[in-house]
Amino acid sequence: MADDRLVALAERLQGLCIGRSLTVATAESCTGGLVAETITNVAGSSGYFVGGVVAYADRVKTAQLGVPVAVLTAHGAVSAQVARAMAVGARERLAADVAIAVTGIAGPGGGSEEKPVGLAYVAIADEAGVDVRRHQWQGDRQAVKRASAAAALEMVIEHVARDTHRAGGA
Amino acid sequence: MADDRLVALAERLQGLCIGRSLTVATAESCTGGLVAETITNVAGSSGYFVGGVVAYADRVKTAQLGVPVAVLTAHGAVSAQVARAMAVGARERLAADVAIAVTGIAGPGGGSEEKPVGLAYVAIADEAGVDVRRHQWQGDRQAVKRASAAAALEMVIEHVARDTHRAGGA
Repeated sequence: MADDRLVALAERLQGLCIGRSLTVATAESCTGGLVAETITNVAGSSGYFVGGVVAYADRVKTAQLGVPVAVLTAHGAVSAQVARAMAVGARERLAADVAIAVTGIAGPGGGSEEKPVGLAYVAIADEAGVDVRRHQWQGDRQAVKRASAAAALEMVIEHVARDTHRAGGA
Repeated sequence: MADDRLVALAERLQGLCIGRSLTVATAESCTGGLVAETITNVAGSSGYFVGGVVAYADRVKTAQLGVPVAVLTAHGAVSAQVARAMAVGARERLAADVAIAVTGIAGPGGGSEEKPVGLAYVAIADEAGVDVRRHQWQGDRQAVKRASAAAALEMVIEHVARDTHRAGGA
């Protein structure tokens, strides 16, 4: 039951990463595994995708990704700071060249005035550092998951393509 | 784009686990996150699902789930022994009451005469121990992923329901 738009993004990512010998890891909260699921729907994805962590509970963010408890406490699980820490942690712990992290509020519960349902942060960590973007999606739980996963795949494609350009590659 | 059959299984699992105050973790290889993705498509899943590991590369099975290199070398990543070790490792490392593990060959590549495409092992670890089942699916990559995810959800439902019965619960 793959989403065609998502699978097309995963195919593009796979082509870029295998061509550049880059490995990728994921760290997902609100998408709940959808980014990894999409990536692994493409045959040959084991050629660049090493794996990921679905960190739903905060203690999994800490134990499996090394997100500091102090950062979770100070900023909350849905924050730019936690997205960054998830991406950096996934890149290190899963020993990948590039890591994708997503944290957000898929709903219908869990929202607040400050952090409404549909808020999501996507972070990409690579050798150059870590970049994070904030999104505010509309729609139901599945729509928020899909929009977040698409944004994550688009952002990592942009990074990998840009870094290739910088390196003078084709 | 959720698969209705899978989501119905996740809803049933959620009802059982929340009613019994049981937490669940996942460890996925060939399903690539589909089990976690399905579980988190149900609103309220954060009430029992702590998270999971998508362990595509063998080094992720070792680093994140504690699967011994010797077991991977002796039996191969797609084996009953590795499925068991993934389930036990996920239960311990993610500190969940029950862990679900899946390892298999989704195809189209990676098969052999001894271990053909569609071979999958599903393991469930809980306080009583660990149980593993072998499956041989027909169909393409997506069909193998879906069948494996459904078998994993059915098996964990069976375990949780049985343990509740044993404990004399409602």
